[in-house]
Amino acid sequence: MALISTSVNNIGLIISQKHFLHTKRKNNSGLSFNYTKRKNSITVKSNSIKSEIDFGDPHWKQKFQEDFENRFSLPHLKDEFDIKPIPTTFSLQKRSSQNGYVNDDDRALLKVIKYSSPSSAGAECIDPDCSWVEQWVHRAGPRMQIYFEPGKVKAGIVTCGGLCPGLNDVIRQIVLTLEVYGVQKIFGIQYGYRGFFEESLPEIPLSRQVVQNINLNGGSLLGVSRGGANISEIVDSIQARGINMLFILGGDGTHAGANAIHNECRKRKLKVSVVGVPKTIDNDILLMDKTFGFDTAVEEAQRSINSAYIEARSAYHGIGLVKLMGRSSGFIAMQASLSSGQIDVCLIPEVPFKLGGPYGVLCHLEHLIKTKGSAVVCVAEGAGQDLLEKSDARDASGNPILRDIGVHIQQQIRKHFKEIDVHADIKYIDPTYMIRACRANASDAILCTVLGQNAVHGAFAGYSGITVGICNSHYVYLPIPEVISSTRRVDPDSRMWHRCLTSTGQPDFL
Amino acid sequence: MALISTSVNNIGLIISQKHFLHTKRKNNSGLSFNYTKRKNSITVKSNSIKSEIDFGDPHWKQKFQEDFENRFSLPHLKDEFDIKPIPTTFSLQKRSSQNGYVNDDDRALLKVIKYSSPSSAGAECIDPDCSWVEQWVHRAGPRMQIYFEPGKVKAGIVTCGGLCPGLNDVIRQIVLTLEVYGVQKIFGIQYGYRGFFEESLPEIPLSRQVVQNINLNGGSLLGVSRGGANISEIVDSIQARGINMLFILGGDGTHAGANAIHNECRKRKLKVSVVGVPKTIDNDILLMDKTFGFDTAVEEAQRSINSAYIEARSAYHGIGLVKLMGRSSGFIAMQASLSSGQIDVCLIPEVPFKLGGPYGVLCHLEHLIKTKGSAVVCVAEGAGQDLLEKSDARDASGNPILRDIGVHIQQQIRKHFKEIDVHADIKYIDPTYMIRACRANASDAILCTVLGQNAVHGAFAGYSGITVGICNSHYVYLPIPEVISSTRRVDPDSRMWHRCLTSTGQPDFL
Amino acid sequence: MALISTSVNNIGLIISQKHFLHTKRKNNSGLSFNYTKRKNSITVKSNSIKSEIDFGDPHWKQKFQEDFENRFSLPHLKDEFDIKPIPTTFSLQKRSSQNGYVNDDDRALLKVIKYSSPSSAGAECIDPDCSWVEQWVHRAGPRMQIYFEPGKVKAGIVTCGGLCPGLNDVIRQIVLTLEVYGVQKIFGIQYGYRGFFEESLPEIPLSRQVVQNINLNGGSLLGVSRGGANISEIVDSIQARGINMLFILGGDGTHAGANAIHNECRKRKLKVSVVGVPKTIDNDILLMDKTFGFDTAVEEAQRSINSAYIEARSAYHGIGLVKLMGRSSGFIAMQASLSSGQIDVCLIPEVPFKLGGPYGVLCHLEHLIKTKGSAVVCVAEGAGQDLLEKSDARDASGNPILRDIGVHIQQQIRKHFKEIDVHADIKYIDPTYMIRACRANASDAILCTVLGQNAVHGAFAGYSGITVGICNSHYVYLPIPEVISSTRRVDPDSRMWHRCLTSTGQPDFL
Amino acid sequence: MALISTSVNNIGLIISQKHFLHTKRKNNSGLSFNYTKRKNSITVKSNSIKSEIDFGDPHWKQKFQEDFENRFSLPHLKDEFDIKPIPTTFSLQKRSSQNGYVNDDDRALLKVIKYSSPSSAGAECIDPDCSWVEQWVHRAGPRMQIYFEPGKVKAGIVTCGGLCPGLNDVIRQIVLTLEVYGVQKIFGIQYGYRGFFEESLPEIPLSRQVVQNINLNGGSLLGVSRGGANISEIVDSIQARGINMLFILGGDGTHAGANAIHNECRKRKLKVSVVGVPKTIDNDILLMDKTFGFDTAVEEAQRSINSAYIEARSAYHGIGLVKLMGRSSGFIAMQASLSSGQIDVCLIPEVPFKLGGPYGVLCHLEHLIKTKGSAVVCVAEGAGQDLLEKSDARDASGNPILRDIGVHIQQQIRKHFKEIDVHADIKYIDPTYMIRACRANASDAILCTVLGQNAVHGAFAGYSGITVGICNSHYVYLPIPEVISSTRRVDPDSRMWHRCLTSTGQPDFL
Repeated sequence: MALISTSVNNIGLIISQKHFLHTKRKNNSGLSFNYTKRKNSITVKSNSIKSEIDFGDPHWKQKFQEDFENRFSLPHLKDEFDIKPIPTTFSLQKRSSQNGYVNDDDRALLKVIKYSSPSSAGAECIDPDCSWVEQWVHRAGPRMQIYFEPGKVKAGIVTCGGLCPGLNDVIRQIVLTLEVYGVQKIFGIQYGYRGFFEESLPEIPLSRQVVQNINLNGGSLLGVSRGGANISEIVDSIQARGINMLFILGGDGTHAGANAIHNECRKRKLKVSVVGVPKTIDNDILLMDKTFGFDTAVEEAQRSINSAYIEARSAYHGIGLVKLMGRSSGFIAMQASLSSGQIDVCLIPEVPFKLGGPYGVLCHLEHLIKTKGSAVVCVAEGAGQDLLEKSDARDASGNPILRDIGVHIQQQIRKHFKEIDVHADIKYIDPTYMIRACRANASDAILCTVLGQNAVHGAFAGYSGITVGICNSHYVYLPIPEVISSTRRVDPDSRMWHRCLTSTGQPDFL
Repeated sequence: MALISTSVNNIGLIISQKHFLHTKRKNNSGLSFNYTKRKNSITVKSNSIKSEIDFGDPHWKQKFQEDFENRFSLPHLKDEFDIKPIPTTFSLQKRSSQNGYVNDDDRALLKVIKYSSPSSAGAECIDPDCSWVEQWVHRAGPRMQIYFEPGKVKAGIVTCGGLCPGLNDVIRQIVLTLEVYGVQKIFGIQYGYRGFFEESLPEIPLSRQVVQNINLNGGSLLGVSRGGANISEIVDSIQARGINMLFILGGDGTHAGANAIHNECRKRKLKVSVVGVPKTIDNDILLMDKTFGFDTAVEEAQRSINSAYIEARSAYHGIGLVKLMGRSSGFIAMQASLSSGQIDVCLIPEVPFKLGGPYGVLCHLEHLIKTKGSAVVCVAEGAGQDLLEKSDARDASGNPILRDIGVHIQQQIRKHFKEIDVHADIKYIDPTYMIRACRANASDAILCTVLGQNAVHGAFAGYSGITVGICNSHYVYLPIPEVISSTRRVDPDSRMWHRCLTSTGQPDFL
Repeated sequence: MALISTSVNNIGLIISQKHFLHTKRKNNSGLSFNYTKRKNSITVKSNSIKSEIDFGDPHWKQKFQEDFENRFSLPHLKDEFDIKPIPTTFSLQKRSSQNGYVNDDDRALLKVIKYSSPSSAGAECIDPDCSWVEQWVHRAGPRMQIYFEPGKVKAGIVTCGGLCPGLNDVIRQIVLTLEVYGVQKIFGIQYGYRGFFEESLPEIPLSRQVVQNINLNGGSLLGVSRGGANISEIVDSIQARGINMLFILGGDGTHAGANAIHNECRKRKLKVSVVGVPKTIDNDILLMDKTFGFDTAVEEAQRSINSAYIEARSAYHGIGLVKLMGRSSGFIAMQASLSSGQIDVCLIPEVPFKLGGPYGVLCHLEHLIKTKGSAVVCVAEGAGQDLLEKSDARDASGNPILRDIGVHIQQQIRKHFKEIDVHADIKYIDPTYMIRACRANASDAILCTVLGQNAVHGAFAGYSGITVGICNSHYVYLPIPEVISSTRRVDPDSRMWHRCLTSTGQPDFL
Repeated sequence: MALISTSVNNIGLIISQKHFLHTKRKNNSGLSFNYTKRKNSITVKSNSIKSEIDFGDPHWKQKFQEDFENRFSLPHLKDEFDIKPIPTTFSLQKRSSQNGYVNDDDRALLKVIKYSSPSSAGAECIDPDCSWVEQWVHRAGPRMQIYFEPGKVKAGIVTCGGLCPGLNDVIRQIVLTLEVYGVQKIFGIQYGYRGFFEESLPEIPLSRQVVQNINLNGGSLLGVSRGGANISEIVDSIQARGINMLFILGGDGTHAGANAIHNECRKRKLKVSVVGVPKTIDNDILLMDKTFGFDTAVEEAQRSINSAYIEARSAYHGIGLVKLMGRSSGFIAMQASLSSGQIDVCLIPEVPFKLGGPYGVLCHLEHLIKTKGSAVVCVAEGAGQDLLEKSDARDASGNPILRDIGVHIQQQIRKHFKEIDVHADIKYIDPTYMIRACRANASDAILCTVLGQNAVHGAFAGYSGITVGICNSHYVYLPIPEVISSTRRVDPDSRMWHRCLTSTGQPDFL
């Protein structure tokens, strides 16, 4: 018998109370929300539901696909409301051809590799034979029928969490696309969810004129902030403001909040479309090729890596050490190492390592200094946390506060070379803010443009509780719970990590 | 009855004679080669073979797939030679896990969207119902079994055609990966196919030390040149030099040459693996998401677009005009327009337009000047060729020499505004060389790294007459004829072009 | 007898009539203005007044200095009006020390090298013995006494001519400094002198909020335009608007206009302070170390030179050709060649050359191709005009329209190598707009900041008809006529040109 | 009676012994050298010798000038050796004109402002009346007569201390210029003075081919290191190697060493020319307009300041904090603040400040947060050292190890806002290595080119114990002791600091 549990239940809705300094708030109705990341996050590859499928059942594949279809079906306003669509007001610039719209039944494949064996590099298998199973998700884009009259729309945009290149591009594109539909009431909520509460933070009216050139600069026009989202109060605020389209840019915590807002709106019978745009510079959102800002971060990281390389090469026994972002996923460190070609050791959270001992990082550095004369190390901020003293602290978004692995490694290198009485000149670079507080590069600008346009198309199409993304280079809509059931992580058996190892030439450090 | 013609025959093998100035050449055996692009190139979307399938046949889909499999099967040395593989010498850095290699039977999907109707945006359908048909191609990567002993390999690398960001990255990665396999005899052929002939151009010995930092600069370490490839002489040269792995970086003409070299080697019973790496800054190679250098070109084009925008905005009735690369495909112009967000009119070869008349470009510019005060136009070099006087001239690679559409449009704008007696200040920018003679950005550097590694894996795996590419974000091997049967072009019904129109706000110009 | 004529008379005030398309103008009073550059511009070095000094007179040096002091004395409002100064409102942030202001009697030296002989490199001598003569000019900066009450000031800012990096920095700093003094009425005149006339171009109110971030982008917030300045109408407009401080950013033509405005205001007894800020990307203003934007232009030119170098080196017999700005002065070409270290031939207007013949540029290129395999040429737009057919055309600013020397040289190279039957691959780059339509670099940003502040200090100090500049790294005020009496040009006997020759290794081309 | 002491005696020659790890050294003769910076460095402005002049003496000015001339006379090989010059082999590319060389008697002025009163901004006065006194120094450049036969020259180049943009440019230009003179034996000493000792560090042969493109990358081709210079051993090594021209790139400590080497060579009657090129990214060398690398550092600092600005503006109550280089001089912080226009508070070593209290930095930040909503602080690494606990530690170059003022201020801001219960979001950026391990910008590239050429001209002219520099935009030679008698510092009464205060709007923090 095949039992497949969806991941929806993994989202913890916890009653908690967040306070902002100097904040006046109205009566708290009690329903509050906090999102806690699971400690033992499931990697992309391991499929926790595998054991629950009875592969002896000749229909297991069909059942799997039915279940998959259910999980990835998109919540729609007509699920709750008796509404009729109208013809779209989104013009395709009078192109003669009429086939410019996306059909609700168009689908894109989530997985596109057929592994002939579970031993193939990076194989993700459902059954022991690694059978090919089609997994279809919904294609994003404008529909011929829409569920909102543009004149009656009041749209809100909010940016949560930390900065990420491309925030302004997405804001800009949402505004421009709303205007193409004919929407005139567009507002920004300031400083993340905080803007729903703080009376001192008025809505910012948005229009083409306001957003025309905001993409030329980094940051967020609307401001960002981390932290507690009191769902009940937010929905009170949405109701009071008359917002019926809400675009939420943020990471998995923010998306959990967005989903809770969506559910609360349903509960209150509010016809509101809530659409998320995943924002995580770490690129750690499930199912997606990449998230906006990631490409820019990898690009900008090249500067710091090159600086570390130059410092290392120009010094006698020089060792450059660069710490890059990546709390639980090493994508930035891996890609930045690969693209630079200047890294000798790349350390990421997904691959455990030891510093000391005959197979440890320090011994390898000693070897590099003796043979090459210099070395460059790239470490993700979340790597090697087991080597540090534990801390239970969390930041305002609920993310655990990490000890600084960069500083730790720097100290250990210094200590090691002192102990073995070999000169070593260590230079440590932490370019975090310089990587994220910058303008999106061209590739991210396009990604942001398409995501922003699709977010608006999704809202007009009547979906809510969805997010936009890119899978296998195609744009899709996904129900929020599916993308936040766990954190996307680098697969140590994937070709990409192997390519990184081929590039660095580093051994196992265990 | 289903009849499906492969595209192989489309490659013209023409006896022609190319002469280089000041070139001493040995006796010309007569077999020569020239590649002519077809005038009526087939667009990606239209599937010329459609009409030959009998969709009444209940097995048409199966037959299609069998034929597809045949077309995309990879030529292998063991097709001709009785050779046995040996265990790979490509180490995965002693990772405990053994599933790091790609299986010969692993496949990737060429198409991943299921269109529910031919009217869906960008629909590519085989049958009238737009049925879903799986189209599998071979996955790229290292195999557990190889067909060359590294100690007996002499590898050659050659870069043909014009410059493209990333050439040095690919050269570098081929060399580094060959060294990981254990190859010691690695040589560069200078200045494209020319280096096979000219006695004054010796082979350049390549090693990690030589290539370590070449990726930091643009251009090609080996030099490039366009032009005639006398297949017989090239294979004479390969034979004389003892080269048994040949890596050829170039565009579709170069690949046609590579395939002819592969065939001639087979004919002569030479055990040589010929592997192509597609190099076209225009991104116009069939079936591939993108080719290396394209992303960098789009990024660098931002500078010129922004300059044009600033000039236009700072001038009284300013009009900025930027000409970007794209002989027959408008990908750079389209993507650069989308990512900049500063373009009012984007003109590409795939979409016809008129300059004059009530719906022409000039009238629209007049409208923009009156309403916005300024305008910025982006035109691909191959756009609007029908508006120019014909020329039969071709360059050394056989590409038709295009009249300069940028200069033409500039003149027509000037003339038009003079005629209507409205002041207009036109600034024309042609950034071509600045876009291509630069270092690869991080994203292209990774693409180049993977393509270079995969080219070497393909050769060691025993394939020949293949090329490497990325499809739907996954890396694949493809037989050369399939990727050069026509030029990849922007589909005017695709979502991406529609997004570009949404961004520019331009109407039809017909 | 020593007779020293000032250069004031060199400014031609010519009755001429300029028309703008679609421009409604009031009755033209007849006094109009046009500035014509002299054909045989006097170089910095040659001192035309030399012959008029009687060096037999034992007091010649004293007389020279008295005359010099007269020429460089600054016109002041109190020359015409009976006005009393008030204590400055420009606060030095309450610094305890009081010596933060510049004294009216502070002076800076215009020349700081004592040549021991006329044969010394770059020697500029007054008498045959090359005696040392102190030449003092006025130091710029805030005075303790000012001649305007901030509350009664209405300030106007206008930017004329072509774009130049740093225009927005100067505008911004003038606004910020005016605000520090306490001025509240600050306005921008749109599109150069045109904004004084065109009724459709309203004044733009300026304040810290408006200008805060304009320096992050290139161009001019106010717009620029070239062309005719009807002095009488401009002064009518100044009078009608009630402007009493006018800041004019522009080149020598614009400054000639500014001086005429200053004179007309005096004539009409208007208490208006007219202060110029020299804007010429060519760096061709007399007496000044450099003008703003020049440094950025040289920096940006590096990209195009490096592209040309890469193209040349990567091509078989490659020749890169870069045309840089410099109508009558080769400073950008010279400095860009020096800083890149990649130029083989640098051609500037000040140094005549031949293309053909045994000592010509073409022969040298042939030599370079044979010995080095490639070559890179940098040519200033105004170089070698004698090699081109004559043209009498002039642009809207009265500058002669130059034939394109870059295109000409490109054609001649192509022709030459064809004639001698040697392969040559020529790549021509014209980066003009990309060099000037960009943000000022840090060095120019500081220069702009200081010039902008000093312009305001000069106006409050009561000066009019002056301009701001930097001499020998110190900031000064100069009377306008002295800086526009001729064009500053590269001295072929200067050390800097010799350094350039040492760097390129090029011979005389005559 | 006028008594003027030269600063030569300020250089302490202290017997000390430095050990390198793993270093084999020959017999130590005992004479060793260490350079200790004086604690109470004399600022540029205050003239310590003033009190010793008897201004009542009518001839005081003449005496001052004679003494000045003595101090700034250049040590020459002919002072010690009976040698005759030969005509220069440095060709000026056969320019017809012969006046291309610099005459030994050419002079440049050290001071070019005539202050009318000691109360003028930035006034530097010798006597109470602030009289004008000419202070002449020697002009740099090629002489017509040289004191070395190029065929007999063996030149050595060494780079000491930390990295600085432009090191490779200077190395490259020294090599190219030596080759123009005809020198063939050119060698690099590796890793600073260390290369003279360590047997494992061979000389690097240098030529045009080796150095052609090294300027495209940051760092030093030769490697750098800090630390002890045993003068006797170095001169032993110079003697053993047969070096007779030594070019030393480094800071004031390195220059003290260079001068000691020069003196020891004289003592041993070795005909060696020792020429320094000042290298200090902090721009803290006396008498010079600027040193190479400084301009690039200011340029690169813009990125980090802009990141801090964006982080601050995008966060709720955001405070950006950037720490820039500047151990005892705040030039980088001051110039970077001025050019960015985004800094609210600039803190430098020369201007004391308090954090707490009603006039302290923290209170001002509180004010900024309340009025502007965000703030950006720029602090030089050597600022506010009095606020930190004392440390006696010194680095290998003898520089005191500074406590981290950036971290301290960050902690104090956090503490302060917590205490007053106001939310504040602080982002701290330390871009040190990214600013210095990068390629020189165009302006620095030119400076490096000229300094490198002049260093070679100086050696061939027979000078030794000199350094090259730029004063008031002109290039000069200076005797080493004069430039290292103290550290150049920002004058808090200078116009430049006042401009910075005008730009930030910050009050006194005392």
